[in-house]
Amino acid sequence: MREEVVSSKAIYEGKILRIKLDEVKLPNGYVTVREIVEHPNAVALIPIDNDGKIIMINQYRHSAQEVLLEIPAGTMEKNETPEECAKRELLEETGYEAKKLKKIFSCYLAPGYSTEFIHIFLATDLIYKGQKTEADEQIKVVKLSLKEALEKIKKNEVKDAKTICSILFFIYFHNKNKINL
Amino acid sequence: MREEVVSSKAIYEGKILRIKLDEVKLPNGYVTVREIVEHPNAVALIPIDNDGKIIMINQYRHSAQEVLLEIPAGTMEKNETPEECAKRELLEETGYEAKKLKKIFSCYLAPGYSTEFIHIFLATDLIYKGQKTEADEQIKVVKLSLKEALEKIKKNEVKDAKTICSILFFIYFHNKNKINL
Repeated sequence: MREEVVSSKAIYEGKILRIKLDEVKLPNGYVTVREIVEHPNAVALIPIDNDGKIIMINQYRHSAQEVLLEIPAGTMEKNETPEECAKRELLEETGYEAKKLKKIFSCYLAPGYSTEFIHIFLATDLIYKGQKTEADEQIKVVKLSLKEALEKIKKNEVKDAKTICSILFFIYFHNKNKINL
Repeated sequence: MREEVVSSKAIYEGKILRIKLDEVKLPNGYVTVREIVEHPNAVALIPIDNDGKIIMINQYRHSAQEVLLEIPAGTMEKNETPEECAKRELLEETGYEAKKLKKIFSCYLAPGYSTEFIHIFLATDLIYKGQKTEADEQIKVVKLSLKEALEKIKKNEVKDAKTICSILFFIYFHNKNKINL
């Protein structure tokens, strides 16, 4: 089913995004143009504190024009491993250091046009060190019990795909009978 | 927490994507540039056939450079409602007509840079009419029991965020005790 690249044209090279137009040939011979957003890979975390609460964040998202309730996440810098990025983003966004990190799954957020692949970690054994938000980020930390987080997902008050799939994945496959829901 | 747009510059206007650079002022006075991908809103479906199987698709994704197992989905055309789009995409991609559609939730796929907001529908009472794939799409229909789909999610063989969150959301909130897992 692989598509063969016939030609590729760079449109924009920015701070985070690169846009390119790839002319591709399908196995059936049809030629079309794919508009591709090249985005660095990323990480997201489900940080569970010593009281069993999930550390989440409220953040204004300009593309959504609203404040979204999300799990901490961020983009991998050059030469950074997913684990290093996860530790850095957790500290910057929430102020917590994680003694234990465990990758639970990875996924593409918008594979119709974006190359972004995100690795999701469970972060436990947390120690508070102090939030180190970047100048262009405004983040408010919100701690929720798993039951509260699940209720907000059910009511669709959580509107971020990575947050919905990460919390449900964690509860469904990693938390059976451990924390009372 | 709202960011005020100071200036906006269009970079690219394509078939599906539009790229713009918005200079924004944060409430703390800091001014920065947000790279925004404007993408039409979209729909995805969890089609359940009369045997209780989920109709999924295998599709080569150029941005991921691999074949992904996903639920049917697509972009809303102008003047199309989410329901109309859902029916059209289900028919085109799988060949099934749905007598019953029920929206279960909506979410942003990549709110850090993309405006895309996707509505997820449960589709039941299906009748096979014949697949009508578009020329630039190569799609192979795959029918899985909920148990099989869940096993593939657990093993991370499903790598598409909308597919993971839609199936887990459906199973967690809409299928309690109804279909044997």
